[in-house]
Amino acid sequence: MDKLKVLFHVNEPARWQRVLLNIINFIKDVGSDNAEVEVVANGDGVLAYYGQSSATGETLAQMQNLAQEGIKFTACRNALNMHNLDEHKLPPFVTPVSAGITEIARKQAQGFGYIKP
Amino acid sequence: MDKLKVLFHVNEPARWQRVLLNIINFIKDVGSDNAEVEVVANGDGVLAYYGQSSATGETLAQMQNLAQEGIKFTACRNALNMHNLDEHKLPPFVTPVSAGITEIARKQAQGFGYIKP
Amino acid sequence: MDKLKVLFHVNEPARWQRVLLNIINFIKDVGSDNAEVEVVANGDGVLAYYGQSSATGETLAQMQNLAQEGIKFTACRNALNMHNLDEHKLPPFVTPVSAGITEIARKQAQGFGYIKP
Repeated sequence: MDKLKVLFHVNEPARWQRVLLNIINFIKDVGSDNAEVEVVANGDGVLAYYGQSSATGETLAQMQNLAQEGIKFTACRNALNMHNLDEHKLPPFVTPVSAGITEIARKQAQGFGYIKP
Repeated sequence: MDKLKVLFHVNEPARWQRVLLNIINFIKDVGSDNAEVEVVANGDGVLAYYGQSSATGETLAQMQNLAQEGIKFTACRNALNMHNLDEHKLPPFVTPVSAGITEIARKQAQGFGYIKP
Repeated sequence: MDKLKVLFHVNEPARWQRVLLNIINFIKDVGSDNAEVEVVANGDGVLAYYGQSSATGETLAQMQNLAQEGIKFTACRNALNMHNLDEHKLPPFVTPVSAGITEIARKQAQGFGYIKP
């Protein structure tokens, strides 16, 4: 069976807990070998990567655990610039992308489903 | 012409009225024979199936009418468990699914469009 | 390379600024020749076309600039009727569609990605 490919879009800090819980339940349901998951954060969504806003250290620890299971986390460079955030200070498991919207468009063109929790 | 296949994602109780109105207008526009519609409720979205939260009896009556026209309603089992809701008390027109996110991913892989009202 | 095709869905007035910024950054990133972008406004999202709600004249000016670069703006006729808005008073760059949901479903069936900012 083909892997189920899903992209999660996060542009509001308050949604992170929901997104991470959704991913955890999804992986538990289908098995990490059967899923390919990417999270694209843009807008205020990127703040959580820096422990700012409502995101606690626990949120970052959950992200890191998921990254170790193969979940890909990305950050929109426009959003980082808008918030004066240094991409070199991103957690090591986060990959910056030139524009979050481009990443979302490309992944859908490659067969990823889109989910906005 | 192929049927237009659409999946609606509801994870907040306040969005139900909008979702149901969207579906009613969509069916009126294309005709129920030309559409295949599924609603996936997860998170707090499942509360409406039990008449809890902002969902009134009228909301449930509207859902039931739509179910009779062939609209499929599903509920995420993780969300039911999280809210201590008994799936055997779901309205008869609602089908529980093991994980809402899996259902959303699978349907998109099968060619359904995704809409988050 | 095929054009990246993206549909933006707006049903809340407060999201317009984010949507327009997303589109500007996207076009800057991939180049307008490599993108096909459509915005579908339904629900309260259509108010901005009339300068009502939180949308200022600047918002409309930004939309017009983007329309000149080839971005397509549409308005759901059901939403116009619900708000007693005259479609003949829409800005000239906005195209009314019979139902926003139908437009969103059709475009996804034609290979457009979906983004809900």
